[in-house]
Amino acid sequence: MHKIVDLGVNLLHANEHQASHNRQTFDAAGVRCFNLMSSPGAGKTALLEAVLGTLCQRYRLAIIEGDMTTQLDADRLRQFGVPVIPITTGRACHLDAAMVQGGITLLEREAAPLQNFDLLLVENVGNLVCPAEFAVGEHAKIALLSVTEGEDKPLKYPIMFRAADCIVITKTDLLPYLPLDQAALQQNLRLINPTAPIFWVSVQTQAGLADWLAWIDAQLAPAAVIYS
Amino acid sequence: MHKIVDLGVNLLHANEHQASHNRQTFDAAGVRCFNLMSSPGAGKTALLEAVLGTLCQRYRLAIIEGDMTTQLDADRLRQFGVPVIPITTGRACHLDAAMVQGGITLLEREAAPLQNFDLLLVENVGNLVCPAEFAVGEHAKIALLSVTEGEDKPLKYPIMFRAADCIVITKTDLLPYLPLDQAALQQNLRLINPTAPIFWVSVQTQAGLADWLAWIDAQLAPAAVIYS
Repeated sequence: MHKIVDLGVNLLHANEHQASHNRQTFDAAGVRCFNLMSSPGAGKTALLEAVLGTLCQRYRLAIIEGDMTTQLDADRLRQFGVPVIPITTGRACHLDAAMVQGGITLLEREAAPLQNFDLLLVENVGNLVCPAEFAVGEHAKIALLSVTEGEDKPLKYPIMFRAADCIVITKTDLLPYLPLDQAALQQNLRLINPTAPIFWVSVQTQAGLADWLAWIDAQLAPAAVIYS
Repeated sequence: MHKIVDLGVNLLHANEHQASHNRQTFDAAGVRCFNLMSSPGAGKTALLEAVLGTLCQRYRLAIIEGDMTTQLDADRLRQFGVPVIPITTGRACHLDAAMVQGGITLLEREAAPLQNFDLLLVENVGNLVCPAEFAVGEHAKIALLSVTEGEDKPLKYPIMFRAADCIVITKTDLLPYLPLDQAALQQNLRLINPTAPIFWVSVQTQAGLADWLAWIDAQLAPAAVIYS
């Protein structure tokens, strides 16, 4: 068993090396990259659908879309006219840096050179555990959590919420119909992650979306790029 | 990379071997074992809370409770007076057969010999991907899916829904507030898994719970045990 654990560490080290290489590629091209992660069905694709119209007016945008088997999410996002590169991971439960490197290669072949883009959004496989440990070269990890999942989830999946640079609580329109303790959820998030901004949003009512878009704008402001 | 894939296969083979050993242990003791799996927050613990009162009247019951870091779910279920063995998986994203073997050892040390039980419920780590590939010796895999997760999930996470012997759709009380296409969800489930029984339930309204309990009863009926 000891050797297997070592190999796991080596796999993570190899991924860190590739992620660092991806990050240099992004920085050289002047592209900011965000990695969106959550449980299945927390609403990553729906959140992107809700803001892509606005984002496309502000930025030259591309998307890498991770899914185990289908291209259903990629098809939803292509309707906005942005380049969407689907990566089907097969049995793998997360995107890793090598897969995203492959996605960059495809993007440049099928759409345009990387320096023609301002923002690359990576939608990870729906999984609140594994993607948190595999950096892909992103400038920020964005963790989504649906209000339907319960206030205990930050404590039960701490690796994800500790790693997050930004936390988006989704589906707040359902709050009236749920037994969720909002204050406890906020407190549990702060126990695990004292500093990441937390946005409570609903794509149904549009609540909170403008604030989250303002956070994205701040990440892409020239000063943020220079001093990051 | 080729060696890493081989090792993955070897790991799965080693797990199958241990799972087969666990299964023999269960059968020798006359215990039926179910493995409950779902996304985080789909309601595995809430479903158990809703039926434990009834199940405890009918069967001698024990629970193995998998979580990455906390014992929150184990604490919730202990209130029903059943033995609950918590297994914290640390960074691991699923229970495996060796962990469940360890759980059996702890159960026998802390509660009673395995043959004193009729039913062992294993609540897996919240993850719609990885637990499906790691058998723990269970007689049936029970996959939960919340109506909040969307009708596309069986297609996007086919390994889980193909492996399931029983599918429980949870939180149906939220259906009036969701854009979910119920017929499409049922159809997508049937594309991936033509035969597993599907139960639509709500722990808030109790809808569907009696039917699911009847399924459990059928699994524990003497004929089911003899001819399984």
